[in-house]
Amino acid sequence: MNSMQTLFDSQPVVINAGLREFADNLRDRGYGALHVEWKPPAGGDEKLYSLLRSLKPLSEQIDAANREAVDRILAADPVLTGIRTAGDVVPGLTGKTIFHAGPPISWERMCGPLKGAVIGAILFEGWASDVAEAERLASSGDVKFDSCHHHDAVGPMTGVLPPSMPVFVVDDRTSGKRAYASLNEGLGKVLRFGANGPEVLERLAFMRDELRPFLNELVERAGGVDVKPIVSQALQMGDECHNRNKAASALLLRELVPHVPALDFAPEIVQRCLSFVASNEHFFLNLSMAAAKVTMDAARGVRYSTVVTAMTRNGTDFGISVSGLGETWFTAAADDVDGLYFPGYGPEDANPDMGDSTITETSGIGGFAMAGAIPIVKFVGGTSDDAIQFTRSMYTITVAENTAYGLPPLNFRGTPTGIDIRRVIERDERPVLNTGIAHREAGVGQIGAGVARAPHGCFARALEAFVKKYTPVSEEHQ
Amino acid sequence: MNSMQTLFDSQPVVINAGLREFADNLRDRGYGALHVEWKPPAGGDEKLYSLLRSLKPLSEQIDAANREAVDRILAADPVLTGIRTAGDVVPGLTGKTIFHAGPPISWERMCGPLKGAVIGAILFEGWASDVAEAERLASSGDVKFDSCHHHDAVGPMTGVLPPSMPVFVVDDRTSGKRAYASLNEGLGKVLRFGANGPEVLERLAFMRDELRPFLNELVERAGGVDVKPIVSQALQMGDECHNRNKAASALLLRELVPHVPALDFAPEIVQRCLSFVASNEHFFLNLSMAAAKVTMDAARGVRYSTVVTAMTRNGTDFGISVSGLGETWFTAAADDVDGLYFPGYGPEDANPDMGDSTITETSGIGGFAMAGAIPIVKFVGGTSDDAIQFTRSMYTITVAENTAYGLPPLNFRGTPTGIDIRRVIERDERPVLNTGIAHREAGVGQIGAGVARAPHGCFARALEAFVKKYTPVSEEHQ
Repeated sequence: MNSMQTLFDSQPVVINAGLREFADNLRDRGYGALHVEWKPPAGGDEKLYSLLRSLKPLSEQIDAANREAVDRILAADPVLTGIRTAGDVVPGLTGKTIFHAGPPISWERMCGPLKGAVIGAILFEGWASDVAEAERLASSGDVKFDSCHHHDAVGPMTGVLPPSMPVFVVDDRTSGKRAYASLNEGLGKVLRFGANGPEVLERLAFMRDELRPFLNELVERAGGVDVKPIVSQALQMGDECHNRNKAASALLLRELVPHVPALDFAPEIVQRCLSFVASNEHFFLNLSMAAAKVTMDAARGVRYSTVVTAMTRNGTDFGISVSGLGETWFTAAADDVDGLYFPGYGPEDANPDMGDSTITETSGIGGFAMAGAIPIVKFVGGTSDDAIQFTRSMYTITVAENTAYGLPPLNFRGTPTGIDIRRVIERDERPVLNTGIAHREAGVGQIGAGVARAPHGCFARALEAFVKKYTPVSEEHQ
Repeated sequence: MNSMQTLFDSQPVVINAGLREFADNLRDRGYGALHVEWKPPAGGDEKLYSLLRSLKPLSEQIDAANREAVDRILAADPVLTGIRTAGDVVPGLTGKTIFHAGPPISWERMCGPLKGAVIGAILFEGWASDVAEAERLASSGDVKFDSCHHHDAVGPMTGVLPPSMPVFVVDDRTSGKRAYASLNEGLGKVLRFGANGPEVLERLAFMRDELRPFLNELVERAGGVDVKPIVSQALQMGDECHNRNKAASALLLRELVPHVPALDFAPEIVQRCLSFVASNEHFFLNLSMAAAKVTMDAARGVRYSTVVTAMTRNGTDFGISVSGLGETWFTAAADDVDGLYFPGYGPEDANPDMGDSTITETSGIGGFAMAGAIPIVKFVGGTSDDAIQFTRSMYTITVAENTAYGLPPLNFRGTPTGIDIRRVIERDERPVLNTGIAHREAGVGQIGAGVARAPHGCFARALEAFVKKYTPVSEEHQ
């Protein structure tokens, strides 16, 4: 048969690249249409495309540097060694100082929930006796604010860390580094979501006076707790260790429980502490974060590396840091969250995306591991296919797979690990983040949970800075 | 364009039904071939097909009866109410009596591991002082043997239940029925796999003397433990509650732990008991079985129902019972298991499929819920797609879906529940079972785990009996 003849005898099929809607439209009208997922490089932005092109001669150097950065991430071996009082161990947390989530921010620019949490922290420390006085103190300049990230620490949502707060202490056996995170208070009206009422302060006092010493002795008796095996198991048990920590929290408790009988605490204290931990399905979150923080800190400062070492938000700004660009924050406005709301609340009540907890995604779990945590769609929205697709898309912007973290629905493929700012820009694919949603006003608390994306602007700015620092023309000016 | 012309102008495509290999062969040679999954009804067996046809006039009655049977299964509300000594509570377990898994069997016909477990049980009870004496006693006729299933009880693998063994007591709030199962000893050299050495007997003594009273008081203090919510959560956490119970065991521990400080036991006993439970990822299995047993017993005795109420094996015979056919066992030889072996062992060492634990599959979990337990393929073999496909295929032989048990990878579709013997025969699709593998000789223990299928003969015999009992011609003879 003449192939030219066949070509004209058969009905044409349209190959559609780019906007899916054109193909759908053709199919609706009975024509054949094959859709190909395609976006122009750098989303069609000529300036960004030319920045990417200017890095081509450095590709080998950058790829080798990125390999070094992710090798450090994959080699991390975080272990929980104690639960201490923040002021005793976290560097720089002395006097009237409060650390918070995200890039540095002044009192004036803080969002509602962060202000609410700062007021709660001031009341908890006894630096003021009521909300009005606390607010005056906070705005007076007499309280020193700084990012948790600048002091080896992380905190979920507002991430507020005053000196009397208990913190997990996590050591990385491989790098010798150490990181800290506050303990999880549970859901509802809690300080990290900006609530600061009496029940919040009472719970914090219990955590400071009973829970911290109890858990610290328990962890010491257990000889420390290896975090990586728990994360690895939990990813096979429906957790992604950011917004779902049900299995990990139960496994952590299982590790510690056999050492309870050897402790010398009053039975009612033991009972209160065990009940508190056993009834909090998010208890593991903060430990997961401290482990991710110490893991990612090991990847900092690799010259020529385009791997992201932190993503974080203070509720106003979203910031990222990049291995080859040191401690600089590249920021953009924090996005809104697409999610499910608790009854009585909606998107109009929501504060933009907030917290240091995106250190989990930065390290390759959380939203990046949603394929291992399909049940989370009941909490953040979507279907099982969405959860799997989120993870699949993250392989296109990362440089490695963490085989220690196998995802069952992907036949145990390792989690996508090590975000490359070049790929984020080239693919126009932003990192997926699971997150809680806080009310935009101080004092209310959590009102939902959902999925967000890291803002494009952070990666564009980081790329520009990277080109400026590393390409020959620019280096003369340094 | 002339459509006849198009037909002859284009290359033919073969539609292949039945054996997939024909289609693969054509495709390999570059021809188009569309494969359609198809098997002849009843696997092409004319006698079985005619039995199925003879039930057609009763379809409405049978469907209504099956609806009644599965409604009872779905309505069950099992709660763990205590841990008691078998001889004190299990009906008929008095004097020198030992119950075992599967249909009734004489000492002579028992497989190696069942004989090994019986010998261990006799030593544990002190009815003999060494293996030789125990073997003589077992074969003398002075020990009474019967099926656990005949006495409201179930046991995994050999399922051996002598009077001094501790048992979970599970009550169904809906039906008012009660069921019992032994406690899980852990993996390795254990009585239920036919081992009977000193370490096995010592562990059983610890379970009788320390663990049983401790757990019983703990469960009573907790006011009982609802089993269904734990199964429901565990199915979203990688368990299928038969061969994988990692999440469920941790969740059970989490329920009980807050009540530990209120108990009055010596710290070293508390420590031993908590360590034992915390270190056994299969601890929940036997509780899952007792809950499944009490659930399925509620579905017994529905006239005209073709729903299977039990599947069980003694290591020699595989037996099923059917709701509309009372207490009769329909048996066939137990099949071999397709699985993964511990180092040093292989299929030649394996005993055929064994134990009452298939009560879990009968109730719609276990192998039927493998889509919710993809990590189990690391233990029983296969890929993530296999796990999902096993569950999908079970929807074709069951009459309902249990919405309380949503499977994440299937977008929370309920587990396939209520095996219909008509569908098993018509589709020629046998129930999928996850199982442990015991060494064929007495005294060795577990050597692997895998997937098995219930033998076709059980269902064929049950169908024949059903037709005989319920179709007009036969009823005259009853």
